[in-house]
Amino acid sequence: MERTTKLSADLGALLAKYSHVLTTAESCTGGGVATAITDIAGSSAWLDRAFVTYSNEAKIEMLGVQASTLAAYGAVSEPVVIEMVHGALKNSNATIGVSISGVAGPSGGSIEKPVGTVCFAFADNQSWQLVETMYFTGDRAQVRKKAVEHALTQLHQHLS
Amino acid sequence: MERTTKLSADLGALLAKYSHVLTTAESCTGGGVATAITDIAGSSAWLDRAFVTYSNEAKIEMLGVQASTLAAYGAVSEPVVIEMVHGALKNSNATIGVSISGVAGPSGGSIEKPVGTVCFAFADNQSWQLVETMYFTGDRAQVRKKAVEHALTQLHQHLS
Repeated sequence: MERTTKLSADLGALLAKYSHVLTTAESCTGGGVATAITDIAGSSAWLDRAFVTYSNEAKIEMLGVQASTLAAYGAVSEPVVIEMVHGALKNSNATIGVSISGVAGPSGGSIEKPVGTVCFAFADNQSWQLVETMYFTGDRAQVRKKAVEHALTQLHQHLS
Repeated sequence: MERTTKLSADLGALLAKYSHVLTTAESCTGGGVATAITDIAGSSAWLDRAFVTYSNEAKIEMLGVQASTLAAYGAVSEPVVIEMVHGALKNSNATIGVSISGVAGPSGGSIEKPVGTVCFAFADNQSWQLVETMYFTGDRAQVRKKAVEHALTQLHQHLS
């Protein structure tokens, strides 16, 4: 079994065990986490929808991210991913969520936010929230894959 | 280059050439088309958002699919994918869209709709509409991969 699929299967078992429903709000991964989650048979029990918000406009319209937050911090920032994950939870029946926004490359990097910079926010419908900025190495495909696997791993670790 | 990525790169070049913006409304593929599209650097020029609507409720709430259509025909049906693609176009700035709903398996199949049955609707903001039901062979991963590649191929063929 491919590594991403294995991570998703292990996470799915935990989501099912605790009757959690997951949602994702994805920018740079473009739906990669949702795709991995739904690789697993029976995943309709723990995922009912996901939001692929690639543009700023999509983040505002689908998730309720504030234009002022995007203007002040940029799309790849912790304040934006925090608003993304809470927007996804609000606009779904999910009990736990993850949001991802990053610079997958090859262009779009800056000194402050080089290619490989990926921000994550995790939250549930209780009080858990985890916000991280990771710096992944590799090309576009590798950065995206590492971002997907990081999201799956962190959710698994939280639920374990 | 992996076959799915090659198909997506070729499609991306055509979408860019004709200044099209694509959106996807995905059920059984769980975001696989959006993930493939955004594998390509520069894809923010031709994809701004996508809808992963795995449950009936998500199809209703995110895309405006009618509950009566779901009740009458089932989620895996041509009437439902038609409503899905038009809902995705309406709730985005996209000029072309694809929707997918199918039985990826291993469970969920019936005599009328066996595992591997996948319905597609393609539409643009002019008058083009193409609706198909395909019967793919293979396991869950193969059915999902074939569905993603079929969507990319049909969009490419239409734009060529």
